Parts: sequence; C-alpha cells; structure tokens
Amino acid sequence: MTFTIDAPAVAWAHRHLLDVDALSASELARVLDLAVEMRAARRDRSRGDALGSETVGLAFYEASTRTRVSFELAARALGATVIDLSVASSSAAKGESLLDTLRTLERTGVTTLVLRHAASGAPYLAARGTHLRIVNAGDGLHAHPTQALVDALTLREALGALDGRVVAIVGDVAHSRVARSNLHALTRLGAVVRVAGPPAFVAGFGTWPGIEVADTLEDALRGADALMTLRIQLERAAGRGVPSVREYVTRWGLDAERLARLAPEAVLLHPGPTNEGVEVSAEVAAGRRSLIGQQIENGVAVRMAVLSLVCGAA
Amino acid sequence: MTFTIDAPAVAWAHRHLLDVDALSASELARVLDLAVEMRAARRDRSRGDALGSETVGLAFYEASTRTRVSFELAARALGATVIDLSVASSSAAKGESLLDTLRTLERTGVTTLVLRHAASGAPYLAARGTHLRIVNAGDGLHAHPTQALVDALTLREALGALDGRVVAIVGDVAHSRVARSNLHALTRLGAVVRVAGPPAFVAGFGTWPGIEVADTLEDALRGADALMTLRIQLERAAGRGVPSVREYVTRWGLDAERLARLAPEAVLLHPGPTNEGVEVSAEVAAGRRSLIGQQIENGVAVRMAVLSLVCGAA
Amino acid sequence: MTFTIDAPAVAWAHRHLLDVDALSASELARVLDLAVEMRAARRDRSRGDALGSETVGLAFYEASTRTRVSFELAARALGATVIDLSVASSSAAKGESLLDTLRTLERTGVTTLVLRHAASGAPYLAARGTHLRIVNAGDGLHAHPTQALVDALTLREALGALDGRVVAIVGDVAHSRVARSNLHALTRLGAVVRVAGPPAFVAGFGTWPGIEVADTLEDALRGADALMTLRIQLERAAGRGVPSVREYVTRWGLDAERLARLAPEAVLLHPGPTNEGVEVSAEVAAGRRSLIGQQIENGVAVRMAVLSLVCGAA
Repeated sequence: MTFTIDAPAVAWAHRHLLDVDALSASELARVLDLAVEMRAARRDRSRGDALGSETVGLAFYEASTRTRVSFELAARALGATVIDLSVASSSAAKGESLLDTLRTLERTGVTTLVLRHAASGAPYLAARGTHLRIVNAGDGLHAHPTQALVDALTLREALGALDGRVVAIVGDVAHSRVARSNLHALTRLGAVVRVAGPPAFVAGFGTWPGIEVADTLEDALRGADALMTLRIQLERAAGRGVPSVREYVTRWGLDAERLARLAPEAVLLHPGPTNEGVEVSAEVAAGRRSLIGQQIENGVAVRMAVLSLVCGAA
Repeated sequence: MTFTIDAPAVAWAHRHLLDVDALSASELARVLDLAVEMRAARRDRSRGDALGSETVGLAFYEASTRTRVSFELAARALGATVIDLSVASSSAAKGESLLDTLRTLERTGVTTLVLRHAASGAPYLAARGTHLRIVNAGDGLHAHPTQALVDALTLREALGALDGRVVAIVGDVAHSRVARSNLHALTRLGAVVRVAGPPAFVAGFGTWPGIEVADTLEDALRGADALMTLRIQLERAAGRGVPSVREYVTRWGLDAERLARLAPEAVLLHPGPTNEGVEVSAEVAAGRRSLIGQQIENGVAVRMAVLSLVCGAA
Repeated sequence: MTFTIDAPAVAWAHRHLLDVDALSASELARVLDLAVEMRAARRDRSRGDALGSETVGLAFYEASTRTRVSFELAARALGATVIDLSVASSSAAKGESLLDTLRTLERTGVTTLVLRHAASGAPYLAARGTHLRIVNAGDGLHAHPTQALVDALTLREALGALDGRVVAIVGDVAHSRVARSNLHALTRLGAVVRVAGPPAFVAGFGTWPGIEVADTLEDALRGADALMTLRIQLERAAGRGVPSVREYVTRWGLDAERLARLAPEAVLLHPGPTNEGVEVSAEVAAGRRSLIGQQIENGVAVRMAVLSLVCGAA
C-alpha cells in the first residue's frame, strides 16, 4: 500500500510535533487532509510500509490507553518497528534521567519517540537534547497537540470550514493540556473560542487574542456551533477555591435538557474518558450530536499523518 | 500458509466465545478438529495470514502468563495485529469503566478482544455493550472456556472419544472457573464427571445433571479414566469452613502411591500452575501419566482455532 | 536480507550463553566479528528473517531499559517472533517457580529465552531444567555476558587488538556482574586488567590470574589504555565498611582534570546508567574519549550476533 498525497503539497518543515502553536493554518490543513487519506487507506486493511525503516519508541511516563493504543496502531499500520518502553517497569525505576534514557534509546536505533510526561516542557527538552524526532503525546499542563488535531478534524468534518464558527470549551481550561492545544489550533483555523467554568478554571484567558470568557453556561453556549466539555479532575483542582462536584454539576454539568435549550444544534466533543453524570450526562455523551466516537476513530488516522510528516514519509 | 479445513464443515454460528455451554457436541468437536490442524500448520513454522486484517486486543485485568502468552502467540501465528493493553499501567488507573475502555478500543480499530476479568460475567457485558468479538480468557468464578477446550482436546487425544469415560475433578470445584467450564464441555461430550473435595468445595453439584459427587478420594478415583486436580487457592477459601493445607493434603492430595493404588491407569490433568506437594506431588505432576505438558502445548493450537472461528476465518 | 559470514568459520558449540568464561579467545573473536557484520546489515534497514522460525521470550525479572530494548530490537531485526513476558504483571505474582514458568513457555513454543534475574545462577538452572536456549541478560552479582561482549567490541574498535593492553576497572568490582564478565572476557583476549576502589570493593581479586589490584586511582590509571568506571550503587554496599558518597567522589570520582593528568590518552567506558558527578563527571562522560555512546550502539549488533549463534542461524 502506498499513501500518495493528492492534496497540493505544502513543504513540511517540522522535525518534531511539540505543540500545535508552531503550525500555520495551511500546515494544520495539511495534517487534516493527510489524516483523511490515511483513514481511507487503513480501511483497506492492507499493511503499509511507508515507515518500514523507522523504529518508533513509545515512552508513556503517565498512564494512557487511548493515546498509546492509537499511536501504536498508527505506527504499525505504517510498517514501523514499534517498541514500548514500558516505563513503569524500566530503568526509570533506577532514577535515570529522562535525557539519559532517551539518548540511550537513540543509540539503540530508535528514530522517532512518542513521549507522554507529567512535566510540562519535557518534549522540548527531549528535542533539544537528542537527535530523535519527538512527537508530544501530552506534557503536564502544557500541550496535547495530536488531540487538538483530532478535534480539529472531527469538527471540520461535522461543521465544514471552521472560519467564524463558535466553539465553547467548558471545564478546567486553565489546567487542561487538551484545552490549551485546542485554543491554539482552533483560533489558528479561524474559529471563535469561548472558555467557560468556575473563575479558577478560566482565570487569565481574558487576555488571549481571539478567546472569549463566558461567565455562565448560558453565555458560553449562546450561538455555539460546538461544545467541548473537559474531564473534571478534582484531585488536580484541590485548594484553588473550586466548587464541590455537586456545585459543579449544578452550574456547569451538561445534560440533555440544557443542551436542547441552550444550543440545540451544537455538536459535542470530549477528550475522554468521560465522568458521566459530572461534566456530561450519559444521555448526552451517547446522543445524536455527540462526536466522542468520531474523535476516537480519527485518533489513529491523525497520528498516522503526524508520524508520516515528521518522518518525511508523506 | 493457508489453513484449509478438511473436516466436514459445521457452520459456525458464534460471534463470541463466552462459555462452552453455548457449544453443541458437534461444535465442540469442530473446534478440537481445527485445533489439531492448526497445531500441524504451526509446526511448519511458516507464518499464516488468515487473520491478517484483524486487530486482536489483549485485555488481562488479572495476572496471567500461560493464557496471555498462548493467545498472543496464537493471534500472531495467524497474522493478526496484536495489541496488549497492559491494563495494569493503563487508563484503567483513571477509574474508567470497562465498557468505556472497550468501546474506545473498538473505535481505534480493534476487532476482537481477548478478555480476562475478575468479575464473573464481564465478557457478557462486553459482548452486549460493544461490537467487538469477545473471547473469554477467564471471568471471575464463572468460566474459562478455552481452558476447557484445551482439556477436552488433551483428553480426547489420550483416551479417544470421551463418551462414557469417567473424569474425576478434585479440589475447590465450587470456586474454579476451570472446573465449571470443564463440567459443561465434558458432559456435553458424553463423559461422566465426578467432583470431589471437602464439602464446601463441592456444595451444590449434586443436582447438576450428569455430575456425581464423591465423598472420598477413593470414591472419586474408582474406575476413573482421567483425573483433574485443581490448584488449591486457600486465600479464596478463607472463612468457608475449609480445612488447613495439612488436612487437605492428607485427605485429597495426590501422590504416586495413591495414584497407583486408586487409579493406576488414569491420566492426570492440572490447569497449572501447580502447588507441588499440595494438591499433587512433584513426582505425579512429572510422571508418565501426567498430561500437564500436553495441556500447555495444546493451548496455542486451541486458541488459534477459536480465534479463526469467531473471526470467520476458518 | 541474508547475513553471510565472511570470517573464517569457527564451529559454534554453545547452545546457551550463560557467561563469557565458557568462550575461548577465538570464540570471543567470532562473536565480535559477527556483530560487526550484523551492525552493517542492520544499517541497510532491510528486515532479516534468519530467525524467522524462532520465538524469543524476554523474561526480565529485574528492571531494565537498555538491555531489554537491545535484545528486543536485535531479535526483531532478525525476524524472530518476540514475546515479552512482562514478568511484573504475570503469574510470577502467583508465586509460580521460575522453572515452572519457563517450562510453560517452552511448551507454548518459545525456543530461546533471554533471562534477567536477581538470583545468581538462575540462567544455569534454566538451562538444566528446560530445553530452551538460554541467553543470560544479567544474573544477580554473577555475570552479564552480552555487556562484556559489547565492551570488548567497543574496546577492540577503539584500540585494536587487546593483547597487552591495560584496562582499569574502577568501582565496586566485587558486586558488579558487568565487571566480573569483563574480567573473564578481557583477560581471555590478552588484556591486562587492573581493578581499583575502596578495599571492600576489590577484596579477593589479588588472587585472580592476570588481575592486578591498584590501591589508588593514580596507580590504576598509570599507563592505562582504557578505563571502565562502574555505577556506584550504595544501596548494595551498605554495611560493608564502605565510604560515603562524598569520600568516594574525593578518592575515586573521575573528572576531566584527573583524567587529563593521570591517563590523557585512555578511553572511557561505563555500563550505564551513569551517576553523573559521582563515579564520573558529566564532562568526562560526554567527552571526546568517552565510548559510552558506542557501547550502547554496539548493544543491538552484539545481541544479534549472540542470538544468531545460539540459534544456529549464523
């Protein structure tokens, strides 16, 4: 199987994918177009070998199912040799530094590293300190660029071009790497983004260009084309003057009645896994306007596109 | 390598393998016949691709070596893409529900799931709540169907047709998913099954059709063609009026002297891993009538047959 | 890709690699020559299938990144089916004995086992108690033969023939399986080996043939062609009259000034991971005479050679 690109070729200048803020609107579109092609090629289920000479290492220093599995299936669908570092049971336990571990991997022949790490900025450190190609699979509170690309593709397929579309992001935006990368990608693609939640969750976003802060769920959803609810992780929120779960659900939880009343045509995204009954009801998560399933389905295709681009195989 | 089936084809109607109780005698025979062919094909060591378009996920929520390795080697021998969820270090840690995790896997392209779970009935939940093909690799105290198929094949090769043969199962039958699945498979294949052990271990089986309850090891082994001893797991038995290990060994432990005296021609099975010196002596486990090694050897072939059948590739 | 051997063939008589002490000088050279060929073949990045009919099991009962990854990439570069036992989450948790686990693996079709274990001698037990080919990936305080082969290759490429060369090994030699295997390999290849460190770290080596014990870093480095510093693991050294880290660094730590003064031409090896600022400074570890990177790079090639030889595929 060969993945030929029919879209007008934009030269790809990025050796790494550290955050989406480094990508122009046309580069973002290039990734999404390529993902659409990859998705079709994967459905043929023939095995590709575009990355047949690459060894892709998976280094997940934080737990993950969907992101790790998506990257592993993406790399294997492209024919790469994939090696999972199983960090939890590795020499990381010996107290070896991240850079020492990554330099070791580079010397063993790993060419591209998919890195998830609790420390914001870890992928930048890796990119500067090794010759590996680095794909950020989530770093601390900072960025989760492939998730933002997945979300952008999912929204584009549901809404068409995002220029002028209104997307509301509800939850602990300040502590969500998913939200942060989406803010970059969506505004770059021309969308109007509103953030909403308790004050401690949206503090500081009033000064971001192109971002509106809404004080209520009503204000957030008024005229919104899409709504992204974030996973509430109260263990991260402790001590920041944050409401109880009960208060959160009362003011910000999304159920079918509210959705029908406030934004009857808006589509719904969620980075998963959901806390059903907290930030979103089970009925809404499984409802006809939920794109949660499509987000996951697009995950492998987007990561195939990203790996192909950083490896120069697209 | 193509696996052609020379046996007269029985149409295979099962999208899942949740328990052996759903299989008719001719369906059981179909699996065993196919396993024999798979074993021969695997010995040729050429790589098959019958499952080349399948992605098989391994989700072991309980520790396992032999079952997980058997399934992984089986799926790979048939050319499937295999992905191990490494549940212990995955988002399961985030408290995501089983169904949410499995639906995510389905969306990423996993087509068939091998599931081991501590909760009895978890594979049924998975089969109802997703579109995945589900193969039960052991659920709680309920069922372990591939182990029962392995045991049936091993017995059939040692004894010939099982119709009218007497098989004694000794140990904590009430809390053994291996025993429970064997009871279904062996009686379906026409064997007479005797269960034996301390009263708390065999309570309730007197009413099962085709099952005899023996009060002593002597009664259990009298005229038996085969004997299956179960792993004693006293941590599960606590508080049920169960004897001490010493008492258990005295009354129910199987050593060479007893085996020679009570059932000199009976073959021996054990689902492994054995507690040598408890339910069975090391001498007996390694003895000439022990089929423990053949059970493990048949494990990969039976799982190749099961995966082929549920995937419609046989 | 076929790996043809141009070097004059020495018949390979070893079914296992348990320690380097069983290898003659010509056998050691055979491994190193083959590793050089493997390294070149791997650079071509075409996939080999010399081990296409082998199933290689990885059983790491101790944490490891570099050794496990090296073996996994080596086995896959040669086309083997590789299965990682993920020991930490396997039935090892059920208290199954090592031999029972390995015999089970053998029955499932594993042909060659790469074993790391905390118990000295475990690979010998495995070789006697199963029909598996065993490659020792480090056993307790006893041996780490593939690391010694890596080091011998790295030294040979830096210095030429090792006959008469002086190699100093500094650190807790008495409790280092890396040092122990290096002592065997280096003396067998004709090198003069000096060991040095606090008395508790070098006790007993005065009587080894071909080994000199140096009392100071000055004495150890005088005229040395190469220097190997070992990872200081003070948790292993507790209660043996061992100095504090501060004292160790003062007397035995290697920094740029000392290296320039004591052995300006010596090359430096370290088995990794380093404790920078303890046994070796960051400047020296990254310096122009450091071969630490080459050691890691040679790891995959040496393990490809070893696996080929024990499997009879070279």
